[in-house]
Amino acid sequence: MEQIYELFNKIKDKQPLVHHITNSVTMNDCANAVLALGGRPVMADSPNEAAEMAAQSSSLVINIGTLAEETVELMLKAGKAANEKGIPVIFDPVGVGATQFRSQSAKTILANIDCSIICGNMSEIRALAGLPSSGQGVDSGDSMDGAEELAKELAGELKATIAITGAIDAVSDGERTVRIQNGHPMLASLTGTGCMTNSLIGVFAGTENKPFEAAAAGILAMGLAGEKAYRHLAANEGAGMFRVRLFDALSTLAVEDLKKGARING
Amino acid sequence: MEQIYELFNKIKDKQPLVHHITNSVTMNDCANAVLALGGRPVMADSPNEAAEMAAQSSSLVINIGTLAEETVELMLKAGKAANEKGIPVIFDPVGVGATQFRSQSAKTILANIDCSIICGNMSEIRALAGLPSSGQGVDSGDSMDGAEELAKELAGELKATIAITGAIDAVSDGERTVRIQNGHPMLASLTGTGCMTNSLIGVFAGTENKPFEAAAAGILAMGLAGEKAYRHLAANEGAGMFRVRLFDALSTLAVEDLKKGARING
Amino acid sequence: MEQIYELFNKIKDKQPLVHHITNSVTMNDCANAVLALGGRPVMADSPNEAAEMAAQSSSLVINIGTLAEETVELMLKAGKAANEKGIPVIFDPVGVGATQFRSQSAKTILANIDCSIICGNMSEIRALAGLPSSGQGVDSGDSMDGAEELAKELAGELKATIAITGAIDAVSDGERTVRIQNGHPMLASLTGTGCMTNSLIGVFAGTENKPFEAAAAGILAMGLAGEKAYRHLAANEGAGMFRVRLFDALSTLAVEDLKKGARING
Repeated sequence: MEQIYELFNKIKDKQPLVHHITNSVTMNDCANAVLALGGRPVMADSPNEAAEMAAQSSSLVINIGTLAEETVELMLKAGKAANEKGIPVIFDPVGVGATQFRSQSAKTILANIDCSIICGNMSEIRALAGLPSSGQGVDSGDSMDGAEELAKELAGELKATIAITGAIDAVSDGERTVRIQNGHPMLASLTGTGCMTNSLIGVFAGTENKPFEAAAAGILAMGLAGEKAYRHLAANEGAGMFRVRLFDALSTLAVEDLKKGARING
Repeated sequence: MEQIYELFNKIKDKQPLVHHITNSVTMNDCANAVLALGGRPVMADSPNEAAEMAAQSSSLVINIGTLAEETVELMLKAGKAANEKGIPVIFDPVGVGATQFRSQSAKTILANIDCSIICGNMSEIRALAGLPSSGQGVDSGDSMDGAEELAKELAGELKATIAITGAIDAVSDGERTVRIQNGHPMLASLTGTGCMTNSLIGVFAGTENKPFEAAAAGILAMGLAGEKAYRHLAANEGAGMFRVRLFDALSTLAVEDLKKGARING
Repeated sequence: MEQIYELFNKIKDKQPLVHHITNSVTMNDCANAVLALGGRPVMADSPNEAAEMAAQSSSLVINIGTLAEETVELMLKAGKAANEKGIPVIFDPVGVGATQFRSQSAKTILANIDCSIICGNMSEIRALAGLPSSGQGVDSGDSMDGAEELAKELAGELKATIAITGAIDAVSDGERTVRIQNGHPMLASLTGTGCMTNSLIGVFAGTENKPFEAAAAGILAMGLAGEKAYRHLAANEGAGMFRVRLFDALSTLAVEDLKKGARING
């Protein structure tokens, strides 16, 4: 936990540049989430520059929410450039399992890039692990039972930090495993909260290359922001104002909020 | 009207998966509009998966707001997959008439896909009907005179429900025709309210395959949300807060709001 | 200054159609910014229609924030179509200098299109001028020292109005040069405020073809809106509500706000 607070405090000095190759639905939200937390977002998705941009970034977030064949190729280019420089790669396997193309693309990515952190919902992580999964579209259809065990096992297998998001999140690097109980159900009523969580993880991982702490910190930040956003809602307010308050909360998050609010069990 | 209320009440159980092949300007708004109403959005626009995703969805929304040649091809693939499974297709002919490419693409789509519902502004629907139209960019430049007659005629011709949005909306399936007088002028000060209306129609059509009711319900929901959003604006507030209140209204819409507020004439 | 007020007052009648070929991260914000100020946005980025759409627009905004090889080609097509008709072209050289591809693409654009206005941050404008620049991603890493001189010099060389945005903005057409001291640091905590500034310039330039005044007016409008947005923030509010208030301010901006608030030095 102390290491999460330290990581948080270092963002301000580092102002990590978080490169994204991501989907077109939520990229604006992701950019604003990175800025709110104190990072600097960049999104360059041409094969002509993705690798060059990745090589000068603090971290690289790969998100397959809207995927084309060419995109997979440039993810590989950018991911390899990041790997060569020791820049952490965060992989958000959006909708894996829903179509053969996504599942195949995820396999190709994992086979060719060393991902530091993989963060998805239960159906996505089950699909990555080769287990039957019942996701629909980009939503999870599986219960969180056994999330910690699955995260730990897959982390060992893929040599990466695995984060499974849900009502209670599980994060494991194969040796250490934690449960995070922060968050609010209204987060599910907005598109892109999963994508934004990965972008926040990108900010932490780009501040210092500590994948396990970065994954937990990113999930915690989103969870606490969701809780705070909900607390500031007035009667009659709904998804519109919740989204506004979420960004308010992210941009005013203080280390004290983390210390007071974190519900993490080792 | 009773059937609209029933449709609305069934969303919660069904949580329809609404697949979009849509423009990049407003797709985030469309995703959030679907979520606000209780549906689940998905946007997969690769030729490698668009049809596979469509086949497992509750409805398919095709929107040509930003169009490429490849996009038309994958709209055809996805549309045919939906048609084969009896999944309703909603077509939003954004900017038809403004360029030859859009007009030609719309023709190709209509010739190859059975669309359950087509919803656009007066200039767009006139262009589809082969009438002179004076749209500029993606905005209508034509008066709403004769909207009901045009909707009815084109509905018969295309064997689809036709909805024409404007100050007073017209919806017809060729046999039944209604006018909807809900809405607020400030809706025109936001981008994507037309696109979002089609996405809301997608939620209703994906809940139960009743195209006429679904089209009327989607337009009504957007109109009522616009009215409520405006009522909640404080002095000095403008387009920014109106947008927030619009999503608040969509996500808190109750069947009582529909019953009290609907101004639909058969 | 008087000419800026006149320009502002004419927007309402003209309702300029502002065509964008722009990046996918901030295009929704740009569309809403154009609407808030009283213009009409359109974004058509297919090679099949970009030129046809440009030729019927009031102004064309070219933004290279997310760039592909094909995009450069269609920017050339659309830019030439605009040039032929005397429609002003605004060029936002996002991230120029950060990758070779962006620098090369910007050169190609400037060599083939007559841009009326070029508006970027200090690192971007330095890169365009062939000076060493230390931008990171899409952010400036250079001080604003000498901005006015640089703007003036480059304006003369490129025969365009050059605007350099920063804490104090500089605008020059080679003969006239002004400094604009409006704005608020929180504008940097949102993605797309630079892109939106170019879109606002597009509204002014599309109202009347006065590049120098249009550039100053667009920057002034964004600066004043940022100041007003900040004034309306309550304690505990952050980036989320600042964004809402920014659009509120843009959509309620009155000529009196400009007259009272403008801090422009000739």
